[in-house]
Amino acid sequence: METTQPSGILAPALTAFTKQLEIDGERTVAHFQWLLKQGCDALVVFGTTSEANSLSVTERTRFLEYAISNGIDPRKLLPGTGCCSLADSVLLSKHAIGLNSPGVLMLPPFYYKAVSDEGLFRYFATLIERVGDDRLRIYLYHIPPVSQVAIGFDLIERLTVEFPGVVIGIKDSSGDWEHTRQLIDRFAPAGFRVFPGSELHLLPALRAGGKGCISAFANINPALLQKVFQNCQRPEAVSLQQEVERQGRALRKYPVIPALKAVLAESRQDPAWENIRPPLVELSAAQREALFGELGAATQ
Amino acid sequence: METTQPSGILAPALTAFTKQLEIDGERTVAHFQWLLKQGCDALVVFGTTSEANSLSVTERTRFLEYAISNGIDPRKLLPGTGCCSLADSVLLSKHAIGLNSPGVLMLPPFYYKAVSDEGLFRYFATLIERVGDDRLRIYLYHIPPVSQVAIGFDLIERLTVEFPGVVIGIKDSSGDWEHTRQLIDRFAPAGFRVFPGSELHLLPALRAGGKGCISAFANINPALLQKVFQNCQRPEAVSLQQEVERQGRALRKYPVIPALKAVLAESRQDPAWENIRPPLVELSAAQREALFGELGAATQ
Repeated sequence: METTQPSGILAPALTAFTKQLEIDGERTVAHFQWLLKQGCDALVVFGTTSEANSLSVTERTRFLEYAISNGIDPRKLLPGTGCCSLADSVLLSKHAIGLNSPGVLMLPPFYYKAVSDEGLFRYFATLIERVGDDRLRIYLYHIPPVSQVAIGFDLIERLTVEFPGVVIGIKDSSGDWEHTRQLIDRFAPAGFRVFPGSELHLLPALRAGGKGCISAFANINPALLQKVFQNCQRPEAVSLQQEVERQGRALRKYPVIPALKAVLAESRQDPAWENIRPPLVELSAAQREALFGELGAATQ
Repeated sequence: METTQPSGILAPALTAFTKQLEIDGERTVAHFQWLLKQGCDALVVFGTTSEANSLSVTERTRFLEYAISNGIDPRKLLPGTGCCSLADSVLLSKHAIGLNSPGVLMLPPFYYKAVSDEGLFRYFATLIERVGDDRLRIYLYHIPPVSQVAIGFDLIERLTVEFPGVVIGIKDSSGDWEHTRQLIDRFAPAGFRVFPGSELHLLPALRAGGKGCISAFANINPALLQKVFQNCQRPEAVSLQQEVERQGRALRKYPVIPALKAVLAESRQDPAWENIRPPLVELSAAQREALFGELGAATQ
């Protein structure tokens, strides 16, 4: 049986921490439930926005088990599992698939820079062999502004040809609409599932043949993104998308992860949401105030 | 009792892998023994050159224990312990110090980019608190060409003022002599231990007040570097350093880690030394041949 693959609005879900900077399972799962109720079609647990790379492998496996045992449907979770170490990526991917996640979002190994496509191909090929599970579905995670290691078109071509039905999609966090459009044009006709990593490109991506978006912004206003998704072929989608852009651009003036946490802390009157693992730091009081002013009453 | 801190020639020691890409403990330890016998004063196990970030935390702790139980003196080891995740860095640092290593080499968390000094300071401060061991000595690892996260002068100032006797040195792999010189001028007078990450700067660093070098090149010709170190105040050091530069520049025309592995494989007639974890790949036959020609008979 083929697992249903997620489409629509995916949130790379924020992780809540206790004051001692341990994962706050209860707060995080409550956020997951809110996101799903407010209109997220699925959640990327352990994305960049989740501070996944600030978590250990054990913290990741334990929290995923905790979330599922606390009522989060694993079929709605696309865990991020790409690490610098192949051994870690294999372990996390096996674990996620074993818990019935429909797929995993896979960063390239990101420590070494200027690596070759051959090296990246071997990384993914070895991973697929070692996971050794027919249920494995991989979404590539292209986020060069952060990872500094790109997943180029030639590599995607080689991976999709070599591993059809396994390498099935991409989150494009290049931030460059032209790049996303080219990905859709070239790979979507064969069924490759393209999700821009920015809500700014949600409507154009949907109209061009993308599957939705996986956007940090979904953590604070998934309902608005879901409206764009539902109405994407209707004329009113344009003004909805304009409101997405207005809010998205306001958010982007600040470091995005602390800014999202500040919005949650404010909207839920729950300062614990601002806890963040170093090297990230919370917004200053001045930044918070300015951000709330710019986002305005439209959020929540 | 204060542990003696290493000076002189330190090799960020290569890691050997089996054909199945597991750590080849026996070959790696034999290499460590050769390095120490040939003139290395100490070894950085789990540096960039060691492919440390391609290893899991468990692989790192197990191998360190294996090396020590197979006769490598822990007081000659400076393990790299900096990871993206604070929890991993704490675990590895505690483990290394517990095994009597004189110190650890600490990358900044390297996933998130454009992070603040405040965030990096909190990372190191929290680490020191959580390791909670008076024996902890930290060498900062500044390698912006790879990590893309720098450890700047203000941060070093703050760390050395806040944690005197704990944050005691730096490996400067900026590749920029002017940067190394400024580090020495500013921090060495107070006892801060500066090691350039490049053999190209060994002699100038020693003459300016640096403590030696931690250079990948030491994996193939530690004896030559040791001669420079021993003779650094004598006139003949200049021509020795020129030969270091000749060989070092030849090596740098190729991806350094595969190039070093190719040289070991050739000089030991042991092709297994070329095994390398993705995303890195071995040199092509043409690259190998050209490299050996350029290095010439001088090596080994």
